Amino acid sequence: MKQSKWIWYPGDFELYHSMLLHNRRRVTGVYKNLNSNKEKDVVGAYYYPMWRVDGPRRNCELHKRAKIEKAETVELISNADEATLWINGTYHRAGAKIELAPGEYEIKVKGFKDGGFPCFYVKGDTFASDESWTVLDFDKRNMAAGCSDSYTDEADDPEIFKFSYKKVTPVSKKAVMNGVLFDFGKESFGKLNLVKVKEKDSDVLISCGETEEEALDIYEANFVVNAKVKNGEFKSESLALRYAYIPEYDGCAELYLDFEYLDIKDVAEFKCDSELINKIWDTCAYTLHLNMREGFLDGIKRDRWVWSGDAYQSYFVNYYLTQDVDTVKRTIRMLRGRDPMTTHINTITDYTFYWLSSIWDYYYFTGDRSFVESMYPDMKSTLSFIEGRLSDDKMYTTRHGDWVFIDWAHFDKKEGPICAEQMLLCHAYSSMSKCALLLSDKDMANHCKKRAEYLREKINDLYWDDEKGAFVDDYTSGNRNVTRHANIFALLFELTSKERQDSIIKNVIYNKEIAPITTPYFEFYELDAMCKIGDFKYVTDMLYSYWGGMIELGATTIWEEFDPKMKGTEHYAMYGEKYGKSLCHAWGASPIYLLGKYALGVRPTSEGYATFDVVPNLMCFGSIEGKVPVLFGEVSVKMDRSSVTVCTDKDGGTLVVNGERYALCKNIPLTVSIK
Amino acid sequence: MKQSKWIWYPGDFELYHSMLLHNRRRVTGVYKNLNSNKEKDVVGAYYYPMWRVDGPRRNCELHKRAKIEKAETVELISNADEATLWINGTYHRAGAKIELAPGEYEIKVKGFKDGGFPCFYVKGDTFASDESWTVLDFDKRNMAAGCSDSYTDEADDPEIFKFSYKKVTPVSKKAVMNGVLFDFGKESFGKLNLVKVKEKDSDVLISCGETEEEALDIYEANFVVNAKVKNGEFKSESLALRYAYIPEYDGCAELYLDFEYLDIKDVAEFKCDSELINKIWDTCAYTLHLNMREGFLDGIKRDRWVWSGDAYQSYFVNYYLTQDVDTVKRTIRMLRGRDPMTTHINTITDYTFYWLSSIWDYYYFTGDRSFVESMYPDMKSTLSFIEGRLSDDKMYTTRHGDWVFIDWAHFDKKEGPICAEQMLLCHAYSSMSKCALLLSDKDMANHCKKRAEYLREKINDLYWDDEKGAFVDDYTSGNRNVTRHANIFALLFELTSKERQDSIIKNVIYNKEIAPITTPYFEFYELDAMCKIGDFKYVTDMLYSYWGGMIELGATTIWEEFDPKMKGTEHYAMYGEKYGKSLCHAWGASPIYLLGKYALGVRPTSEGYATFDVVPNLMCFGSIEGKVPVLFGEVSVKMDRSSVTVCTDKDGGTLVVNGERYALCKNIPLTVSIK
Repeated sequence: MKQSKWIWYPGDFELYHSMLLHNRRRVTGVYKNLNSNKEKDVVGAYYYPMWRVDGPRRNCELHKRAKIEKAETVELISNADEATLWINGTYHRAGAKIELAPGEYEIKVKGFKDGGFPCFYVKGDTFASDESWTVLDFDKRNMAAGCSDSYTDEADDPEIFKFSYKKVTPVSKKAVMNGVLFDFGKESFGKLNLVKVKEKDSDVLISCGETEEEALDIYEANFVVNAKVKNGEFKSESLALRYAYIPEYDGCAELYLDFEYLDIKDVAEFKCDSELINKIWDTCAYTLHLNMREGFLDGIKRDRWVWSGDAYQSYFVNYYLTQDVDTVKRTIRMLRGRDPMTTHINTITDYTFYWLSSIWDYYYFTGDRSFVESMYPDMKSTLSFIEGRLSDDKMYTTRHGDWVFIDWAHFDKKEGPICAEQMLLCHAYSSMSKCALLLSDKDMANHCKKRAEYLREKINDLYWDDEKGAFVDDYTSGNRNVTRHANIFALLFELTSKERQDSIIKNVIYNKEIAPITTPYFEFYELDAMCKIGDFKYVTDMLYSYWGGMIELGATTIWEEFDPKMKGTEHYAMYGEKYGKSLCHAWGASPIYLLGKYALGVRPTSEGYATFDVVPNLMCFGSIEGKVPVLFGEVSVKMDRSSVTVCTDKDGGTLVVNGERYALCKNIPLTVSIK
Repeated sequence: MKQSKWIWYPGDFELYHSMLLHNRRRVTGVYKNLNSNKEKDVVGAYYYPMWRVDGPRRNCELHKRAKIEKAETVELISNADEATLWINGTYHRAGAKIELAPGEYEIKVKGFKDGGFPCFYVKGDTFASDESWTVLDFDKRNMAAGCSDSYTDEADDPEIFKFSYKKVTPVSKKAVMNGVLFDFGKESFGKLNLVKVKEKDSDVLISCGETEEEALDIYEANFVVNAKVKNGEFKSESLALRYAYIPEYDGCAELYLDFEYLDIKDVAEFKCDSELINKIWDTCAYTLHLNMREGFLDGIKRDRWVWSGDAYQSYFVNYYLTQDVDTVKRTIRMLRGRDPMTTHINTITDYTFYWLSSIWDYYYFTGDRSFVESMYPDMKSTLSFIEGRLSDDKMYTTRHGDWVFIDWAHFDKKEGPICAEQMLLCHAYSSMSKCALLLSDKDMANHCKKRAEYLREKINDLYWDDEKGAFVDDYTSGNRNVTRHANIFALLFELTSKERQDSIIKNVIYNKEIAPITTPYFEFYELDAMCKIGDFKYVTDMLYSYWGGMIELGATTIWEEFDPKMKGTEHYAMYGEKYGKSLCHAWGASPIYLLGKYALGVRPTSEGYATFDVVPNLMCFGSIEGKVPVLFGEVSVKMDRSSVTVCTDKDGGTLVVNGERYALCKNIPLTVSIK
């Protein structure tokens, strides 16, 4: 018999796990906020998601038609409340073994499940359930069934997200007041286990923190676990922590962590002659891995939600770190939810634009047409939603409830339609146009191409300020305010002429009077632009000072925001909460991407790495060495001031040194000396 | 404290119970179809619904703002997996009693529930949960929360639909072969109870039927229950039956029914000097009541689904029978499901058009503006769905997957766009226009009015055949086929000139060469039209022969279809199944409506019965007497050949006799003699 896979309505696995994920947030500062008479009654209250969270379908019908030459037996297994196997018009219950004589068959699986979502597993040969089964309803008729290589065993349960676990014990513990503080050595995520508790049925308070200060501050810590010990044992829900503090500890219990993670191996490696940079690279990789879960999370402590702008950057870092594509696909599906769209993704306008752009990027890095195809109906309805909210002159304009984010930076985003949004919309149109062309939807491709060209003109007409030699934030208020954001996008997406780009570099990028970027989030775009310009000193300075600054303060993962001027616990506060800042935030991992793309210099030059350039650059280092994943392959690069050596196991590569192009032969190292 | 109500996302109660309802159908003929080695293994396989069934939201957030003058205590009760009570920014868990000092508050309830749907019950005074709470998400922002007067107690569970039950015992039992056949005396619905079983833990087969033949034919019966007796007792799921047969009966068990029903009292009464007509009226009323459940069902045996065309007629019957409006509202919501619409309602084009029309009718009979308001977003997206599938000349045209029903009658519905659909669309546009005007959406009202006028012109231009003096079914095939259906709609909805109406009456209605109507379903429209024309002989003849024909064959409820030419068990077959026909089908109950509207003669003349006419008509009877509900009131009518007496407890009535109009005074009987 052929290997079967669990199948479901396409996208519903992602909707289900996204729903669970987005409903797990707890209120911080539980003592303060909860009305309680019992001091120990500290279970965090439920924190409602900030946008509509869509559940999966509770009814699902999938089918397959085939002619079989030899007899086979089929059997349906299903988790559904009600399920039937329909064969050429006859109904059979799950569990019945049906023998099929050679001939033509249409087989349907039909099910209803109230909680969770209905899944099917058909044992058979030709009819073994997998992506060759398709949807039967009118919404997504003929779309391939959802399935995953992680759920191929009859005993698998697609309602349980498959993580890996390993036991991690604290690296140290010390007495503090009447209690004990455990240190797991670095930022971690998983289920706390309290075992061998002397009082076999008791309540034990465990206060967790990303920092020692947070764990010890039981009234302000994000996670205070009220462990209900039964039979001397307790296991918590999964949570983020480095430190755990038991305020009343009688010395007779052991604490360890079931560290929870996805077992995704890094392909990428990076070493240079700066130990700090190497440590930054490792810390960034670890930061991304901790946030790589059901989807790409923003951070593992506070909301643990999936945000499109954050995820957009994680995709790029991931393309330069691992061979995993599933987390990208899951995240894209989770973000989109179900029709009808009634708000922008995460309620943030720019995040919808990134979402559209991310699908072309995904295709460009993976060459996976089938995913683009499966998302295309959602892409079209997303575009239709966007266009339903444009102004009469087809430009982005703010509507009630739209959140214009761009960055945490303070600039007036409410004064008229701002430039950065038009640029992201323009880029989204370009991406949509390319996806439409890929799927031979020529009308859509033309429409989007024209809109992109139109927007580019409008942007250059309305937002360019000749006097300032830069794009201004908005053109309606008359403020003529210049920030880095729109100007960085103009460079990155090449939205203006070479002359204007040069003007931007001079008048904005190198202009110290223009407020600097303060989040690792927007540093991604700024440093990408600076690498593009070739100012590697700017980039490496920032790595040393900004990322290095966090490492010097003991960071084991990259933070949500970092202001070198702050002191002590000031660093941990955000959003009005004493420990509100996330100290493990995915958007800080961009050095992986920057060093892979611009130091090791690996860049696809056509879809799916069919061709790619390797343009190594020492930046400001004495030597670099490392690897970058290319689709189903890798490129290793070793460079110092005298020579560069590159080897790859994939066809289509070209080494570029000092403008000279050298074709790479598969598995044959090529060394070029540098004059 | 004020009486609280359970609240939920508006429409989700209906979506949830509709989901359960539409997933309860079982395959008939279970022995034949199930692959089973055990002869007694007879549990019916699950039969998948024929259209997309939408589940309720699993996340819900509702809120209320108010200023309170005196202190009050609020407490949240919720069925959700996660729930919080948010008061001016502070989170509290369900169950916490929170004291509010006088002042201004915004209170939110937020919850997540995987299975079922999240419901909230806030104890308080000003903040007692009820329809003054509103939706907080972006989809239906500010729409009133869903609630029901049936769920006002803290102990109520909105996930359990509240039926009434009464114990019904068989009126007779007789030995047949080795078993016993129980007769409950008439068509019934409920849970079978087997008690005092001698073998306390055993399997007992119970075969059910609407007829004796069906119950005794255990291989073909629709419901064969494999009763798993525990401790001498068993209770079945709810099902339809008159007869129950236990093939292997040792005489030591009792069988009774928990008859399941909604306790809705009839306001209407009808008696005339024909006992058969009186029996028909009572049988029709009983038929409707049996089908009046979570929503108006088509029939109680086979699919037990909610079909828009069937329900549309049930609404009218109900307006002439009870004061209940909740079942109408629930049915309208169930039929619509959630956005996005991707097929017509029940996949049937005409059924979408009826759905739109039904909302104006609902308003006309009830004056309940708030329901129209709550459905208006769905009405608009329904119209948008319809318009997205019109032809370039803005007429209805068949699209892939659209089912053109009109009636079970055979006429070529696939040859081009058929006339009857254009007429129903035209009527739907008129209804939508009136609803839009009611809600002061003038643009929409104008748009729909213009489209209705345009369609009326098109219908008269394209489908009228001068030679035949009638509307033809289609104009593209050249068949020039005439059926009754479109011509009946033309009369009912007044879609053509007086001259053409007269021509239709002569050339279609009284033309015996035009195939007669064969379903009680379309008899509703034909007889409504005939009453409008004033041919009461045609109507009463049909009551005697068609409805009377069923009664004479022993029907205790009205059938899905009736062909007087059939014999014996031929009557019970349909859809290729020996007992496939439903013998309790709601669409047969139209005599209630016809006799109330045209014999007792009660008709609203403005919205919500603000004014109404009473135009009694003996039809072909010697005397009539009865009552008709008018909104929050009733009208009683007594008439013989010499005089008519009318009394009503509602203002706004006018008695019309021989064209003379007599104002009715509330609670004062008025007698007018007939010359």
